[in-house]
Amino acid sequence: MDLSDNNSLPDVQGTVDQRALVIQRVGIKRLRHPMAWQAKHGIQHTVGEFSFAVHLPAEQKGTHMSRFVALLQEQPQLWTIAQASNIAQILCPLLNAPRAFFEVQFPLFIEKTAPASGVKSLMDYQVLLSSEATLKENSTRVQLQIPVTSLCPCSKTVSAYGAHNQRSQVTVYAQLTDDVWLEDIIAAVEKQASSELYGLLKRVDEKVVTERAYDNPKFVEDLVRDVAIALRKLPGLSHIQIDAENFESIHNHSAFASLRLEKE
Amino acid sequence: MDLSDNNSLPDVQGTVDQRALVIQRVGIKRLRHPMAWQAKHGIQHTVGEFSFAVHLPAEQKGTHMSRFVALLQEQPQLWTIAQASNIAQILCPLLNAPRAFFEVQFPLFIEKTAPASGVKSLMDYQVLLSSEATLKENSTRVQLQIPVTSLCPCSKTVSAYGAHNQRSQVTVYAQLTDDVWLEDIIAAVEKQASSELYGLLKRVDEKVVTERAYDNPKFVEDLVRDVAIALRKLPGLSHIQIDAENFESIHNHSAFASLRLEKE
Amino acid sequence: MDLSDNNSLPDVQGTVDQRALVIQRVGIKRLRHPMAWQAKHGIQHTVGEFSFAVHLPAEQKGTHMSRFVALLQEQPQLWTIAQASNIAQILCPLLNAPRAFFEVQFPLFIEKTAPASGVKSLMDYQVLLSSEATLKENSTRVQLQIPVTSLCPCSKTVSAYGAHNQRSQVTVYAQLTDDVWLEDIIAAVEKQASSELYGLLKRVDEKVVTERAYDNPKFVEDLVRDVAIALRKLPGLSHIQIDAENFESIHNHSAFASLRLEKE
Amino acid sequence: MDLSDNNSLPDVQGTVDQRALVIQRVGIKRLRHPMAWQAKHGIQHTVGEFSFAVHLPAEQKGTHMSRFVALLQEQPQLWTIAQASNIAQILCPLLNAPRAFFEVQFPLFIEKTAPASGVKSLMDYQVLLSSEATLKENSTRVQLQIPVTSLCPCSKTVSAYGAHNQRSQVTVYAQLTDDVWLEDIIAAVEKQASSELYGLLKRVDEKVVTERAYDNPKFVEDLVRDVAIALRKLPGLSHIQIDAENFESIHNHSAFASLRLEKE
Repeated sequence: MDLSDNNSLPDVQGTVDQRALVIQRVGIKRLRHPMAWQAKHGIQHTVGEFSFAVHLPAEQKGTHMSRFVALLQEQPQLWTIAQASNIAQILCPLLNAPRAFFEVQFPLFIEKTAPASGVKSLMDYQVLLSSEATLKENSTRVQLQIPVTSLCPCSKTVSAYGAHNQRSQVTVYAQLTDDVWLEDIIAAVEKQASSELYGLLKRVDEKVVTERAYDNPKFVEDLVRDVAIALRKLPGLSHIQIDAENFESIHNHSAFASLRLEKE
Repeated sequence: MDLSDNNSLPDVQGTVDQRALVIQRVGIKRLRHPMAWQAKHGIQHTVGEFSFAVHLPAEQKGTHMSRFVALLQEQPQLWTIAQASNIAQILCPLLNAPRAFFEVQFPLFIEKTAPASGVKSLMDYQVLLSSEATLKENSTRVQLQIPVTSLCPCSKTVSAYGAHNQRSQVTVYAQLTDDVWLEDIIAAVEKQASSELYGLLKRVDEKVVTERAYDNPKFVEDLVRDVAIALRKLPGLSHIQIDAENFESIHNHSAFASLRLEKE
Repeated sequence: MDLSDNNSLPDVQGTVDQRALVIQRVGIKRLRHPMAWQAKHGIQHTVGEFSFAVHLPAEQKGTHMSRFVALLQEQPQLWTIAQASNIAQILCPLLNAPRAFFEVQFPLFIEKTAPASGVKSLMDYQVLLSSEATLKENSTRVQLQIPVTSLCPCSKTVSAYGAHNQRSQVTVYAQLTDDVWLEDIIAAVEKQASSELYGLLKRVDEKVVTERAYDNPKFVEDLVRDVAIALRKLPGLSHIQIDAENFESIHNHSAFASLRLEKE
Repeated sequence: MDLSDNNSLPDVQGTVDQRALVIQRVGIKRLRHPMAWQAKHGIQHTVGEFSFAVHLPAEQKGTHMSRFVALLQEQPQLWTIAQASNIAQILCPLLNAPRAFFEVQFPLFIEKTAPASGVKSLMDYQVLLSSEATLKENSTRVQLQIPVTSLCPCSKTVSAYGAHNQRSQVTVYAQLTDDVWLEDIIAAVEKQASSELYGLLKRVDEKVVTERAYDNPKFVEDLVRDVAIALRKLPGLSHIQIDAENFESIHNHSAFASLRLEKE
């Protein structure tokens, strides 16, 4: 690759800026790229949407956006939480930046076993990993979207039979302080719902999940509290926040709750 | 407004095209504009997303997109189905086109009364009106999105108690052959669901809708069939299609059905 | 309206909770409702998407979601920034909550005059107002999405002719400390872009905006810095953040920047 | 796997329906699953969103949705156009249906070489394959979304310098009558745009694509006509339709065109 041509052209981004204004983040986003993920039970191929950014000091006019894409092209296909953490740190010297940011979001697939028939199928969960680094230190956060069933305790109590229920989305935000499997966080969340979801259910399974949901009614408030209690026992997580949204089956709007765990 | 300046500039769109290819539709879309709608029980203010297009004969290089926007600016704020039909016909001479197309989509709000407490609240429905015209004739179609509750008959039958239910979206497509109130189509659809939705429900109402849904289990197949039977009795509609999608509370995917009523 | 029936049913939400976990926010969202907005040059009808929430003390099992919807139904149609601020404060006693939150987002329309022909048309901007209150104090924030044109300085400099340009979205976040017209914030932002956008442009106008954009090349970094300088001169705003995203015409991903103004 | 439990429960879907109404399509959609794709230059891992449906005769109450998911779980990971065609045909006997439908959409990645520097990067394109089959025959269609640059001929002609340009989306719909590489369709489309897009461009490349776009101005009408001419020369395609949408850099709405190639 001959870059001499490139260097013969003026570098507008590299000139000095007079406006005395720091930019906290500048970079690229919405860049799709295939990736492999080191899942708990093997390597999983998926598609990531990537974002890269740096802190831009006041005296610098612009950053060099093409270096973000070039860095992504050079990465080995296999991604881990450790590698996602590492990328932000690589960006600092690469773009001569005091602070850098990295994000990738992708669907993660987990094989689940139906509760009565034992049939296997995949469920999809949306993962977002983000890291922030200076030359000396870095931190990594995860955001996990976990769809579940919620069944309304009020509806169950006031009704002679039945109870409205619906798909809900639980979103977990946490800082990762140690090695952790995303699969373990997801399993801990699903246990707290009225029922978990499955890709494939036979009639015998449908009976089980219907009765299980009716036996475990949860308001959106119960959902975030019970998930909070479950997650604060998991090692490797801190600064935990849990959001839940119920796509109400009796309304055209959602109920939601958001709980931020205070320092224990 | 002085257009002489404009006419002094070359009109590239107006030149002759040599490629011998008709373009079925060319125009603009995703244009948001406030509008008033003549609802059944009064005038309703809402926001429309508009689209305008014409058929472009093979010998014409391009159309004059700015005329679509100018036409919209000149419209009286109050829209009716008749006016939506009319717009496509106005476009033909305005753009010197043999055929023209118009679309507007907007949220329509209907006041509903909760079944036990009698409290009033608004529900929102998404409407899409489209018209197509030549100089001689025109036709108008409607697409209505109506969210409802569906409760699974299989789950109810196989389970000792409870039944999974969820929000579903029913979409009605129809050609309008006579005056019709959108509110009447919506009401006819809602009666066929396991339950209709409400903006505001008290506990006494929640009891009613929960039990009503349990008493009226419907597969997605039942939903489209029962809606079809109800709609074919309504005057003013033809070429009816009904789609339904259940946002399943036990899966992370949807069940759907699509029924096109054959000529009676 | 007879509520005695309602009170005869058990109030599950009102029971005592033992989990000792505060929930920072619980409420409803994605509720669409028509609204009128007091714009700078008159009253404007539009459609809002509303969200209401309260802080839930540890000992309370749940909140009463239906009261949020009832409150919305009672509001006068005309909304102002002051009323949006007020709603969060009304929620505290209404739901017996120490802290409450309110959000509404809606499209705002502004009439613009094309630069050469003088033709008038509406442009749409997305507004999000949010307020947070305790019984004693409240604060209100605005988020404004303003689409503009950006033209790349690097592309202009290195190319013999032409320069890539594209639609960009500028998002302004600010706390409102005094009366301010949203229209004034929008106008201040648009002046800093390579060019502003219009609903309707004639050829004479297209010439003006094309040449104006070429005369005012801006990186995404320039855009957020120049907007920051313009906005810090506007009275009534504090805690300002400016984001910009360029939907690059030469890539299938976006460039973005985010600048948070430090205390002056 | 013991299915005896399953068969001991009533099969509500399998009962006889009295409403005398055929349902054209009933099935599932929005099911995400990992997949491998046989691309022109090797195997590519990606994520698909799947949909399966069957025609439901009037006398049948419902279909067996879980069989769709079970079929997907059994598929080999490697997908080709031929396999997508085949799936619809497998569904007919599996669900005892006279007609069946299959759809999968996924991002396809193609390695591109920057025009001056020669640096390599991936570009993403959205693919939708659909097949429809009876026991005797089947047909397969493709829908490809190809983002490109468009530069406005009118703006170039009337302006002393510069020309507005933007990202555009070209969507190709075609029936596949023979083996064809999606990569060849995409390349044929990209050649007709003002410029193609790249993941990674150096300054020397930015100069090339900027000047190339300025040298090749295209209205949205030109884009669909020139793509039509290019695609009708490609073997293996019939029933071609080309849509293009320009995300205008001078407006907040889009210009669009749709051209359906008549039988040659």
